[in-house]
Formats: sequence, structure tokens, C-alpha cells
Amino acid sequence: MRWHTDLPDHDTKSEHLKALGALNPHPERVHAPWFQTNGFFDPPRRASMHTVVDVDAGEARKFAARWGWARGTADLEAVLADDAVQLVDVVTPNHLHAEHSIAALEAGRHVACEKPLARTLTEARAMRDAARRARRKGIHSFVWFNYRRCPAVAFARALVESGKVGRIYHVRACYLQDWGGPDTPMSWRYDAKLAGSGAHGDLNAHIVDLARFVTGEEITEVAGALEQRFVPRRRIPGRGRTTTGRSSVDDCVLFLARFKSGAAASFEATRLATGNLNRNRFEINGEKGSLRFDFERMNELEWFDNTLPSAQRGWSTITCTNAGDHPYAEAYWPPGHPIGYENQFVSQAADIIRAIARRRPVVPLPDFEDAYQTQRVLEAALAAARGRTAVKLSEIGDG
Amino acid sequence: MRWHTDLPDHDTKSEHLKALGALNPHPERVHAPWFQTNGFFDPPRRASMHTVVDVDAGEARKFAARWGWARGTADLEAVLADDAVQLVDVVTPNHLHAEHSIAALEAGRHVACEKPLARTLTEARAMRDAARRARRKGIHSFVWFNYRRCPAVAFARALVESGKVGRIYHVRACYLQDWGGPDTPMSWRYDAKLAGSGAHGDLNAHIVDLARFVTGEEITEVAGALEQRFVPRRRIPGRGRTTTGRSSVDDCVLFLARFKSGAAASFEATRLATGNLNRNRFEINGEKGSLRFDFERMNELEWFDNTLPSAQRGWSTITCTNAGDHPYAEAYWPPGHPIGYENQFVSQAADIIRAIARRRPVVPLPDFEDAYQTQRVLEAALAAARGRTAVKLSEIGDG
Amino acid sequence: MRWHTDLPDHDTKSEHLKALGALNPHPERVHAPWFQTNGFFDPPRRASMHTVVDVDAGEARKFAARWGWARGTADLEAVLADDAVQLVDVVTPNHLHAEHSIAALEAGRHVACEKPLARTLTEARAMRDAARRARRKGIHSFVWFNYRRCPAVAFARALVESGKVGRIYHVRACYLQDWGGPDTPMSWRYDAKLAGSGAHGDLNAHIVDLARFVTGEEITEVAGALEQRFVPRRRIPGRGRTTTGRSSVDDCVLFLARFKSGAAASFEATRLATGNLNRNRFEINGEKGSLRFDFERMNELEWFDNTLPSAQRGWSTITCTNAGDHPYAEAYWPPGHPIGYENQFVSQAADIIRAIARRRPVVPLPDFEDAYQTQRVLEAALAAARGRTAVKLSEIGDG
Amino acid sequence: MRWHTDLPDHDTKSEHLKALGALNPHPERVHAPWFQTNGFFDPPRRASMHTVVDVDAGEARKFAARWGWARGTADLEAVLADDAVQLVDVVTPNHLHAEHSIAALEAGRHVACEKPLARTLTEARAMRDAARRARRKGIHSFVWFNYRRCPAVAFARALVESGKVGRIYHVRACYLQDWGGPDTPMSWRYDAKLAGSGAHGDLNAHIVDLARFVTGEEITEVAGALEQRFVPRRRIPGRGRTTTGRSSVDDCVLFLARFKSGAAASFEATRLATGNLNRNRFEINGEKGSLRFDFERMNELEWFDNTLPSAQRGWSTITCTNAGDHPYAEAYWPPGHPIGYENQFVSQAADIIRAIARRRPVVPLPDFEDAYQTQRVLEAALAAARGRTAVKLSEIGDG
Repeated sequence: MRWHTDLPDHDTKSEHLKALGALNPHPERVHAPWFQTNGFFDPPRRASMHTVVDVDAGEARKFAARWGWARGTADLEAVLADDAVQLVDVVTPNHLHAEHSIAALEAGRHVACEKPLARTLTEARAMRDAARRARRKGIHSFVWFNYRRCPAVAFARALVESGKVGRIYHVRACYLQDWGGPDTPMSWRYDAKLAGSGAHGDLNAHIVDLARFVTGEEITEVAGALEQRFVPRRRIPGRGRTTTGRSSVDDCVLFLARFKSGAAASFEATRLATGNLNRNRFEINGEKGSLRFDFERMNELEWFDNTLPSAQRGWSTITCTNAGDHPYAEAYWPPGHPIGYENQFVSQAADIIRAIARRRPVVPLPDFEDAYQTQRVLEAALAAARGRTAVKLSEIGDG
Repeated sequence: MRWHTDLPDHDTKSEHLKALGALNPHPERVHAPWFQTNGFFDPPRRASMHTVVDVDAGEARKFAARWGWARGTADLEAVLADDAVQLVDVVTPNHLHAEHSIAALEAGRHVACEKPLARTLTEARAMRDAARRARRKGIHSFVWFNYRRCPAVAFARALVESGKVGRIYHVRACYLQDWGGPDTPMSWRYDAKLAGSGAHGDLNAHIVDLARFVTGEEITEVAGALEQRFVPRRRIPGRGRTTTGRSSVDDCVLFLARFKSGAAASFEATRLATGNLNRNRFEINGEKGSLRFDFERMNELEWFDNTLPSAQRGWSTITCTNAGDHPYAEAYWPPGHPIGYENQFVSQAADIIRAIARRRPVVPLPDFEDAYQTQRVLEAALAAARGRTAVKLSEIGDG
Repeated sequence: MRWHTDLPDHDTKSEHLKALGALNPHPERVHAPWFQTNGFFDPPRRASMHTVVDVDAGEARKFAARWGWARGTADLEAVLADDAVQLVDVVTPNHLHAEHSIAALEAGRHVACEKPLARTLTEARAMRDAARRARRKGIHSFVWFNYRRCPAVAFARALVESGKVGRIYHVRACYLQDWGGPDTPMSWRYDAKLAGSGAHGDLNAHIVDLARFVTGEEITEVAGALEQRFVPRRRIPGRGRTTTGRSSVDDCVLFLARFKSGAAASFEATRLATGNLNRNRFEINGEKGSLRFDFERMNELEWFDNTLPSAQRGWSTITCTNAGDHPYAEAYWPPGHPIGYENQFVSQAADIIRAIARRRPVVPLPDFEDAYQTQRVLEAALAAARGRTAVKLSEIGDG
Repeated sequence: MRWHTDLPDHDTKSEHLKALGALNPHPERVHAPWFQTNGFFDPPRRASMHTVVDVDAGEARKFAARWGWARGTADLEAVLADDAVQLVDVVTPNHLHAEHSIAALEAGRHVACEKPLARTLTEARAMRDAARRARRKGIHSFVWFNYRRCPAVAFARALVESGKVGRIYHVRACYLQDWGGPDTPMSWRYDAKLAGSGAHGDLNAHIVDLARFVTGEEITEVAGALEQRFVPRRRIPGRGRTTTGRSSVDDCVLFLARFKSGAAASFEATRLATGNLNRNRFEINGEKGSLRFDFERMNELEWFDNTLPSAQRGWSTITCTNAGDHPYAEAYWPPGHPIGYENQFVSQAADIIRAIARRRPVVPLPDFEDAYQTQRVLEAALAAARGRTAVKLSEIGDG
């Protein structure tokens, strides 16, 4: 009953779609959604979908049948011991990331782990250390920071790298969702023991990774932070309207930071920003140009080229669907035909296969080492938020 | 050499992706992209991908290997004669739609044909008649008017159907692309014998179908039309810079129409609208509300509810990703996680399987009967454009 | 009772604001809104606001007091005979434009007349002829096609003129309003004898002028047109709910046209496009670049530069508020501080004063000659719409 | 030479337009831009524009002539002593606000002072105290927090007040400009002695006022802050390329705060956000609905009504131009005809006149008391930023 939790998961399905399981990069077998459709990329090898593992073997088999896996089981150890399994995809809740990932790495399997890497920096360090040891034996670790492979995001990084943005002054990143209102029931995501944190690990993890990825810079300082729990108790599903449990995680964490180059930055994550379904957004304001991205319009990158003649300067909406011009676009459709959320995973799956086959991924793949740096930033934000360094207005002037 | 053409196709790949081939709805086999990923819907049967047919057997086999078809061949007759094949997907150039579709229907296979149905109304009528005969034997015809299954479009139809739009005054539809400039070389798409028409059949076909689908009304009159060829000659690829061929199709067809209810309408299709990559767009202005859709932001429907208190009225951008609320959304991702172009085909594939399994598709599937009505509108537009009923300004006043 | 009408005007106020009256460009007197604020431009002379003329002398005086005119009267003849009056601003309903303008021109006064120039082409020709005669005596005529002086529009014209758009393929213009639903009562605007036409003269007049202004090209042919009256009878205000009158004007006129260069064009005007408050919009698609403008966001011009490296091409939203870069912007605010509807009139007033003082206006001022060309296009559209050249679907194929 | 400064002002003009001067609310005289056009509102009294005061009497007279003031002078004392002067409009640089405002209040004149109220909290307190004393004698103080009177902003406040937003979870406010890059020369705005602060007082002052105004709540705590100067030295104009001066103000201040109700908030002000010309923007996320405003599209308010049926929820763009529905809209144009930056001042001028005439302004006018609360928040943010409570990443984990 390894990753059973007492609390139901509010989004079991999306977790499932990302496949509780173990993959094997052989071309002869059926594929799971991401690896199944790798015809888009025609990578050096084809993944075959070996076994789905779940605490409930029946569920695992049902899932496997629906999604084209060869088999389903509850016996993780057996799967890890099977040399036919080359890659383990860890999509369990956060409190199991460390245990499952380290076990798989030590069994000599490549590991692709869901984000956030871990609940705590301590756990993350153990995972990083295991990944370092495995790396010496040629074993890879990967983290599903999937947004890096959104063509608009990868193109944003290319613009920064090519010098078109120039010195960066200001990074504004937010990840606003709105599913966490008072009516949302308890789940493992509201239990700090299982999830580590709330919006912070779930959402700030993504935007810290994105900000580091796109700017190519590390964050050196968290200047201030604010942590808030708006809904302290939540209904426990299946136990009537009045039985509630205590949420032990944040609903919202905001923090201000500095990058190594001196750029100022703000990060805001919340699950109670009504109307913001999945607003994973960043703005990067530089001397020569500025960038804006909003995942709800994931095919678009907004670009302000400050070097154009001033009369013609404006925010330009680049639809990042041009084969040849925009990363990953050649795998998909003609210009102006949008790709969707899943294509980022298809692209990452292709890059993972490339990496395992010793080819270069299109853009860098985050490994545990890299994700550990993101975890340090999250930890610093919590330290700042909990350091109680806030200034009360009652101390300022006379009311 | 059945569907070989002298002119190379500028977008071979996208055609290929839609699979020159034949599908077989059995769950034991590997899947093609659309049918492969039907785990999203868990339909009553699973499609297995039986055979890809191409004029070049080697190409067919290569394609089959990449995309998970069981086999590839150049022998269409054999495939049509094989009772294991239940559904034939016709994705050949326009001039072969009639021949291939009728042959497959007569062989007792369900047929899913690419749009436009045919080059001419005469051809379309023959296809419709064959589909009528087949229908009596329980054989289905389908047309890949894929945009109907975009959740935002299907939701637009639902709003109209539920009476929330009220009497429709004005329909504005356009399909603007920009790949057809003077540098674009000849291909079968510029040869009227192969393609039938240019932007008209390629793009107006889609928006006429969409307008009929969303309003639920037929067009009764084309009030005026304009047909234009901006680029009369185009370079023939592979024959140097100076060898050109004559384009025999329109680059742009605009027309004005009336719906049965008296609604006014405009339709505009062009391949030379610079900056409009794939702007398949409609606006429907009704008494109680208005709708706007733009495929480049396919997850969004703009809705103006004229029955709200006037202070609060505005164009509302509905992100059509709510399971339960928006058609097809339950198959995919959590709110605010966009789907892409391909998901429309995945959804249509699922509906085709449902229809074959005698279940109701989520929204009506266009058959040849239905596509024939669209073809009549296209024909009427050409009649109006070529009737030379235009009024010269030189006849009006003194210059 | 010269310009008294039996039907009340639904928007008396906006008409009034544009001042039923007569202006005198002297700096010593109080100013009316447009001329009052010409400190923005510091033009060579200052306008003084001499007399407001209305059928009701009391109303004229009240209006004058509120808006800073020196006096109000009902005696138009006396005003026209007063040599202190140099410019007459004709803002009466359409059926009086010809009479008032011609009288003022013949009295040797400069005339600024509201659009549309006239109800009919015949009337427009008489006005043009009067303006031609006056011109020989140094008297100017002007038409309040105010949108030309929107900085974004004037900048669009500059981009076309400078060759940055290249060959124009397609012009899409529409002017969509939504105030003309079934609940809107009768007014002079619904009486063909007074207004000439409905949306056609009111709205298509503007967008035909804009299209000609921005492209710098004349329209040579109307290829087809559609005219529609959705609401045949309207309540007469003040006579209970059931007394209705017949609307004798169109609610909506759409037409398709060709420019001299072969560019295709669509024009759509309606007063029943729910949700479109004042959508005066054009799109110009050219070989080297494309433009889009929407008056509801009047400070912005969307520009697609097709000559940029393809990876960086996108629709760029240029906020046309840069002094030096964008026409008229230097008169107003720092970048990003929007101007509003009235500033176009302030700018036109300044240009009118410049023209009278023999200075060059910032962009060309439309005179009666110019407005007559627009009227010809409107007439051609009606001829096409009423020529009954439409193709019924019942003639096409079998239903 | 009272408010002469050694450094030229980079935006003299916009300051001038807001009129260095003194106004007198009498209806018989000529008007300045804001008060001139009060025919829009037809307020109980009319302002007459009495005297412009500037350090340079010639400039004052020239300005007066252009903008319709009766006279210009350098003698402030005489003006303050003139009982014909009822209202003094203080538009001098920040370091003179306290001196001029207090002098005018003590002379028994109503005062309208530009924002920020003062350079420091100490100065602000002295001004507040002077205003309190004056208030007892019926003398008013006003602060030009002009954005409150933007119809979309005032309507946002109305939505919050009416309970439609519900409990507020999160306020995100930013004011991003981009004119402060390295090429921008020194001016009084970069001298802390004259300006007090940089982006902080100039821009955060506005958005703190807006956030307090729209939410109707006070800020109780600043949780963290970040202050940054990107450009330490700037060229001194007129002294060659190489003579630079030290900027002593911030270029960017970000801070996180809590409202009394527990709402989390972020405020970001910068002058180096390339591409953001004047992005005065806020987002308010509440339980029942959310609001977004961006001054660059000042006529629009985005509204997400979380109480609509879930299928129809979306961000609705309300164009706030409906007379009767949207504050101040009845004074201006028909729906969809935008107003501009200046109309906010016209509206505030009308409200100031109403307040002086003991009528209610349309929405509350900020006085010195109110602006002092905003100043306290600014002070708390600086205290937090300078408290060095930041967490270095070097303290977190091992690098």
C-alpha cells in the first residue's frame, strides 16, 4: 500500500493520464499517450509501454488496457527488478517522489519524476545525491517541468540567449489558478505531510524553473515573501457536509527575488485567483526587448523589440508554430494550427528518448541537479515568509 | 498510379499525417495518431490501424512503421476487398475523393473523406448518391469537417440551439491564410483539374460548414460574390527559377449570402492575407447574444450576453476546457490547459467509432448528404462571382 | 423651422456637441469644445465661437451658454450674412446638408459639413459643384470624416504610403454598431427622406472614406452587395407602445469591391451587430505587411511586418502615442496615455484652421470633391444590392 | 525663484499642461483645459482661469495666453493674497508640494495638489495637519489621484462595493513604465532631495491609492519589499556626453502587502519595463468575481463573474462607456466611443467644483488625509526594503 493516501486525490485523472508506471523504450510494444505519438518526432528509438504500477493491481490493469500498456501490477519491486524496464516514470504524490525515484535510480533505471522534485529541501538533496551517483553509471534523471518544451517558452529562451533581450531588469512570474476555493474538499494536496506545500511547490516550482530556464540565470536572493492560507479547514469527501479536516498547506505564496545579474523579480502562486484557470505567466523586461508568455495562450509569445524604429515598436504576438523557426514546431502542424498541453509531454518524451540514446534534446532537460536549485529558491521563499520580517503599518506614522 | 500528380504537394506531410489509408476498428492492433489516442474517450470499440495505401508501396510501408500501422501497400483494390477493413479514410487530393470514396462505399466500407467533398457539384452529387445507397445497407459516410468538434465551436452551436443567441441578424465568417504568396510554387492545389478550386473549396468549404453547423440553418441565397487570382503563374519546383506554370484556381473568393431566417452573411476565403496564419473565424450577431470564434485561439469562445444587466455586458472570453460544461472537454485536461489542432481529429475519430457502433456522436457528424449542401453554396458563390453582375464605378456619376 | 423634423433624434446630444452652429476663427472669443482646446496645437489662429444656430432660439442660447459660444439664434440667414462669421459648421440632419452647405458656400463662408455628405448622389453632386465654384474664390469645404485624424489611422496611411505594406491584396472594413435593435424607436435616422439611407450612409460612408484614405486608392467596381432591413416598423416615441412607423432605410448593407490595383475588398455596415458598440474596423493585407485597426481601441494599430525574420513575425500592437513618431501625438500626452474620441475633432479643428490660414494640415482634409467619390461608391453598392443579381440556392443542384 | 531646480525636467510639457497655476471658480472667464471643458458636466458653477504662476513671469504669461488663462505672473504671494482666487492648483515638483499647499491652505484657498502628496511621511503629516486645520474653516484639500475618475476604475469600485466581488483574496497591482532607461538624462525626478523617491512615489503612489480606493480597504502590513536602482549615474543635459550626475532615487520598488481583511497583495513600480508605456494595471481576485484593469486600455474593465453558470464564465471586457451604467460616461460620448487621459481630469475638475459648491462628487475625492494613508504604505514599503531582511540563497542548502 505504498502510495495509498487516506485522502482522495481531486485530480486523479490528470495524474493517471501522466501514467503511474514504468516505461521501456522498445519499439515493438504499444505506446502510452506521450510515447505513443512519438511518430511526430521519429526519435532514434521507440518507447514501448511496459507496465503500469498502482497500489491497486486491478486499477493498474484497467488503466493499462485503456491506454495501451502491456500490463498492470501492484508489485513495484518486481518491475524495478525487471531489466526490460529502462525508464521509470514517477507520477505518484509528492511524498513518494524521493522513495520511488531513489529506488529506481539505485536499480539502474532512468527516472522521469513529476514536479515538484520533493516536499522539502532535505528530501530533494537526497534525490539529487542519488541522481549524482546514478549519473556516474550512465543513468539519467529527468523532471517533468513540461513547460520548458512549450515552443513559445523555448523560443523565449532562444531570444534571451541570442542577446536580443539584453540586460534583464525585471522578471514578473505568476501561476494563478482558481480551483482551490472554500468548496474544494480535502485531498492529499492539502496535507503538508504528503504534498510538502500547497501552491508553492505545485505552482511556484514551475515558474521558478521557467524563470531560471528562460533567463539562463540563477536567483541569488529572496528579498521578501508572503504566505497565506485562506481556507483553513476543508470538507472531507464522503463524510457528509460537516466533517472537515485541517489544511496544512499554503493557498498562496508570493515572493520577491533578485537574479545574479541584479534583475528584480516577483513570483506569485495561488489557487484562489478566481477566473485564472491556469495562468502560468511570465514577463521579462530587458534593455533591448521584453517578453510575455501566458500558458492559457500557449502557442503565442509576446515580444517587444526595443531596437526597431520607435514608430513601429509594439508588443508583437508571435504564433510559435513555424517549422524551422520555433522549437518543436516542425513535429506538429502548419503555421497557425495550435498545439495543446499534451504536446509538451510528447516533446519531452521525445527528448528523454534522445537523451537516453545519447542524442541532444532540443532544449536542456531538467535533471534532479537542476530541480534541486529550484527547490532551494522555494525554501528561501518560505524562510523569508516565515521570518516575520514584515512591517506593520501600525509602526508607521500615526494612523 | 492512381493518385499520383505531376505537381508536388506543398504540404505532403500534413496530408500524410492524416494518413493515406484504411482503418479497422479493432482494439488489438496499433493505432494511428487519431485513433491511437482514443483512450481519451474510451469509446465502445478500439480502432486498429490496418493498412496504409499510397501510390508508392515503399512510402506506405515507411509511413506505416513510423505511425503504427500494421502494414503499407500500393494495392488499394486488395485493401477494399479485405473484409477486415471496416473504415476507409480518404485523404487523397481532391480529384480522387469521388473515385476512392465511391469505390469504398460500394465495397461496403464506411468512408471518412477529407474536405472539400469534391471538386464540383456534379462530382459531389455522385458521392452523395453513392452514400445514400450505402446508407440503406448500414454503411456510413463521414467528412473531415474537423472544426465542428473544436469544443468552442460545439459550445457555440449549443448556445444557439438553446436559444441564448436569439434571432440571428448577421454571420461574418472568414478563413484567412497567408501561405499563397507569389513565392509559393505550383502544386496540385493550384491545378483546377486536381483541386477543383483554390481558397474557395479549401477554406470556404470549412466556414460554410461551420456557419451551417453553428446556426443550424441553411443558406438560401448568394447575394453577390468576388473571385480573384492574384498570382497567375507560379514557379514549378525542381525546374529552375524561371519555369512557371499557370495557376488555374482562385486565390481568394468572397461572397455575401442570406440564411433562411433572413440573416445576412459574409464569407471570405483567401490564401494571401499576410499575417493571418490560419484565421478560421466567425462572428454571429443575434438579438439576445453574439458569438466570436477564432481558430488561432481555438480554446476560446467570445460571448456577448445581451440579456445581462447593461452595466455588466461585455465580450466574455470563455475558455472552453471545463469537463461537463464544454463538449469534448471531459476527455482532455483540467480547466485552462489548452488542447490543440489534433484533438479535434481525436474527437472526430471517437465519434466516428461511436457512430459505427450505433452510439450517438457528441455533436452531429457531417456525412456526404450534409457536405453536398455545403457544396451547393460554394457552387452558388461561383455562379454569382462569374455572372459578371458587378457594378463598375464608371457607370456611377461622373468621375 | 428649417431643419425641424417630425421625429425626435435619438442622439440629439452628440449632434449638439458637435455644435449646430457657426464658428469664427478669432482668438478673442470663447471657444467650443473642439476649437476651445486648440491650445494643444497652438495653431496660427485661434477660433472664436461666434453663434450657435438652431430652429429653437432658446435652445440655441442655452447651448451657447453651456459650451462657451458668444450667442445663440434661430436666424441662419443673418448669421450667413455676417462677415464676422468665416466658417460654418453644418451638423444638421442629412437632408439639410446640401441646403445649408450650399447657402454658406455661396455666402462666401468656409464650410465644415458632417458626413455623409448627402442623402443621394444627385445632392452630393450639387454640393460638390458648389464647392468647386467656391474654391475658385478661395473658399474651403471640409467634411467631418473625423477618423482620418485618429493617430493610428493616419499612421496606417503613412505605412502604406512609405511602401511598407507593398501591393495590397485584401481590404476588410466593417462598421458594426448595435443600437438599432427592435426596441429602438423611430427617429429621423429611419426616414429615408431625411437620412437618405440607414447604416449605409451613416457607417459605410466612414469606412469607404477610411479605406480610400489609408490605401490612397480609388474603388473601381462593386462586385456584389446585400441590403437588409431587419426591423420594418418602429415605435414612435411619445405615442404609446403600439403606434409604430415604417422604417424606410436599411439596417445593414454589405458589399464587395475591387480597388484600382485589383485589391479585393469587403465592406459591412450594420446597426444590429449585438455587442459591437462602435466597431469601426479595417484590415489591410499586403504583400510586405498587414494592418488592422479597431476604433474601440483607437490608440492602437496592429501591424504585421512580413519583412522581419520569419521567427519574429507577429501582429504587433503599436500604441500610437509617441510624439514625433505618430501623427498628432505631439499635441497630447506622454506615451501610453490614451487619447479619446474628441481628440480627433480637436485635431481636425486645428487642421481646418491651418488650411484656412494656408498652412498644410497634418494629413489631407476631405473636401466635398473627395466626399463625392465616397458617395459614388455608396451609390454603386446600392445599385448592386438592388439589381437583384443574387443567385438563389434553389437554382443550384437539387435540394 | 521658488521652485526653480538646477535640473531640467524631462517632461516639462506634461507638467505645464496640468497648469502651474491658480484657478478661480467663476463662470465669467475663460477656462483652462480641464475646467474649460466642464460643459460636459454642466456643474453648479463654472471655473474661470485666473492666473498662472511660474518662476518665470514671461513663461507664465505665454502659457496663459495659449491656454486661456486671464494672466500670468511669478508673484505667488500676490496670487495667494487675492481673494478672487478660490482654488490653487499645485503642480510644482514634489519638493514644493508641502510649502505651496500649506501656504495656500493657510491663505484660505482650496488646494488641489499633484501626487505624490509629499517626499516623505514627515512632510505629508505636516500637509495633512494643515489640511485638517483648514477643513475646520470649510477649506478643502484635493489630490490629483486622477485614475479614480477613470470610468472603468470607478465602476470596479462600484462592483466591489455592491458585493459582487465578495471576499477579496488577492490584489495584484503594477505600474510599469519604460522611459527610465540608461539614456534618459538627469532631471529633478532623479534627485531624492527634490522628488523624494523615484518610481515609488511617482507610480506606487498611484496604485496604492487605486487599490485602497477600489477595495475600500486599508493595508495593514508590508510583508516584504525590494528596491532597485538599475542606472546609478545619468548624463546631465546640456553638459556634453560625459558629464554625469548621481541618481539618488529608486528605479523600481516592489512590495508585498496584506489588507485588513487578509487579502494578499503585490505592488510593482518601475520605469524600466521596456514596452510598458504606461501600464497602470490592477487585478483583484475575489470569491464571487475578479476584476482586471489596464490603463493603456482605459475604457475597458475586465470582469469575471464567478456566479454565472460555469459553462458561460469568462473574462468579460466591459467597455465602460454607457451613460447611466458607468460613472462619468453620461458626460461624454455614445457607447464604444473612447474617452482619453484628459477626461479623467475634466471629471475630477467637475467633482472639485461640486465639492466646493457643497455637492457630492460622483466618487470620493482624495484629500490630504486620504493621501497621507497612501504615504504611510509607501513608507512601510521602504522600511521593509531597507530592513535587509532578505534571505540569501547562499544560506539555503548547498549550492
